[in-house]
Amino acid sequence: MVMPLALLEKSMNKKISLMLKDNRILEGKLTGYDEYMNMVIEETEERTADASRRLGVVILRGNNVVSISPL
Amino acid sequence: MVMPLALLEKSMNKKISLMLKDNRILEGKLTGYDEYMNMVIEETEERTADASRRLGVVILRGNNVVSISPL
Amino acid sequence: MVMPLALLEKSMNKKISLMLKDNRILEGKLTGYDEYMNMVIEETEERTADASRRLGVVILRGNNVVSISPL
Amino acid sequence: MVMPLALLEKSMNKKISLMLKDNRILEGKLTGYDEYMNMVIEETEERTADASRRLGVVILRGNNVVSISPL
Amino acid sequence: MVMPLALLEKSMNKKISLMLKDNRILEGKLTGYDEYMNMVIEETEERTADASRRLGVVILRGNNVVSISPL
Amino acid sequence: MVMPLALLEKSMNKKISLMLKDNRILEGKLTGYDEYMNMVIEETEERTADASRRLGVVILRGNNVVSISPL
Amino acid sequence: MVMPLALLEKSMNKKISLMLKDNRILEGKLTGYDEYMNMVIEETEERTADASRRLGVVILRGNNVVSISPL
Repeated sequence: MVMPLALLEKSMNKKISLMLKDNRILEGKLTGYDEYMNMVIEETEERTADASRRLGVVILRGNNVVSISPL
Repeated sequence: MVMPLALLEKSMNKKISLMLKDNRILEGKLTGYDEYMNMVIEETEERTADASRRLGVVILRGNNVVSISPL
Repeated sequence: MVMPLALLEKSMNKKISLMLKDNRILEGKLTGYDEYMNMVIEETEERTADASRRLGVVILRGNNVVSISPL
Repeated sequence: MVMPLALLEKSMNKKISLMLKDNRILEGKLTGYDEYMNMVIEETEERTADASRRLGVVILRGNNVVSISPL
Repeated sequence: MVMPLALLEKSMNKKISLMLKDNRILEGKLTGYDEYMNMVIEETEERTADASRRLGVVILRGNNVVSISPL
Repeated sequence: MVMPLALLEKSMNKKISLMLKDNRILEGKLTGYDEYMNMVIEETEERTADASRRLGVVILRGNNVVSISPL
Repeated sequence: MVMPLALLEKSMNKKISLMLKDNRILEGKLTGYDEYMNMVIEETEERTADASRRLGVVILRGNNVVSISPL
């Protein structure tokens, strides 16, 4: 059994990909999170079909997140 | 009586299909979950009418899930 | 007085019809539920105006359900 | 002062009309409810501008309800 | 300081106007409410730009209400 | 550090502007609020690009509010 | 580990950029926040693709926020 928050813990300081409710895809290094799945992402890039945009450090509210994948 | 979380427990390490609120269909092996139905899915594939896309390991937030079926 | 959860209890192992928030209609045998109206449905079929699709066993999250009818 | 739940209590076994968030109108006899305004409705009919459809017994989740009127 | 619920209390048995999340406007006499801003409205009329419709007694769920004005 | 509710307290009996989730802009004098950011606004006007409409006293449910600015 | 609220604390009195659920971008100096990520922003500007609008001091409700970036 891998608890969802335990997998976040294991992903600390590694690159993850996030899909948000508004369909945006973010990629970056996970450097923090809390019990609500609020996260701190560094070196964040927003990826769309044909472009990518640098967002740097981002605090992301958990209730906007659909799914998270270690990269 | 089969409690919903008990059926998740019984589906551990087996293939499941998930329908999300945004109508996406994910398939993969359930390797973890918590009381909020947040889940960890491995070997995840997103299936649409005419294609499938590999997502690998995915942490899925439970409040985006409509339904879950053992495969 | 028929409490809503008591009617679910009375519907155990019987066929029910469910309307979801996304307007889909599911029919199947209720084999489990919890206090949040998460449900386990077996022999589930999704019915639309002109077709029906077999979904088998389904764990349904209660917050996607609009209404439930014993059949 | 008429508390909202007290008026539901007074409407027990009487005909009520319900407006749902998806704009559907249901009419039927209230035979049960709980503190979340989940309701059991019997002899339920769904009314639209030009038709009505029999739904029989319905368990309705309270969070889909906009308003309730005794008939 | 006028607490929001205290102004509801002061509006008891008086006419109020309500704007709902679906943009409908209701007018009627407030005869009850609870801590969730569920309300009982009597002699309710739904007003649109070019018409008004009598709804009589209405139990309104608070989470559908945007704003309330004493008339 | 200015706590959000402390700034509401400091805005009491002063003019504020509110943006609602449905994009409407309200302006008026804040005369009350509670911990959920439900508010009582007096001399309220709804402003759109080309018109303004008097709403008088308004009880506003906090969960419809996006942002609040002292004027 | 950088807890999300700790990064907000570290951003106090500094410029941040916020993305809201309605896709608006706000920039300004963070001068306060609470545990729900309600925030007080000063010298706030709303930025769109081709314009920027001064909003001054803004109390922002946390549940409308998607992401926050220190600038």
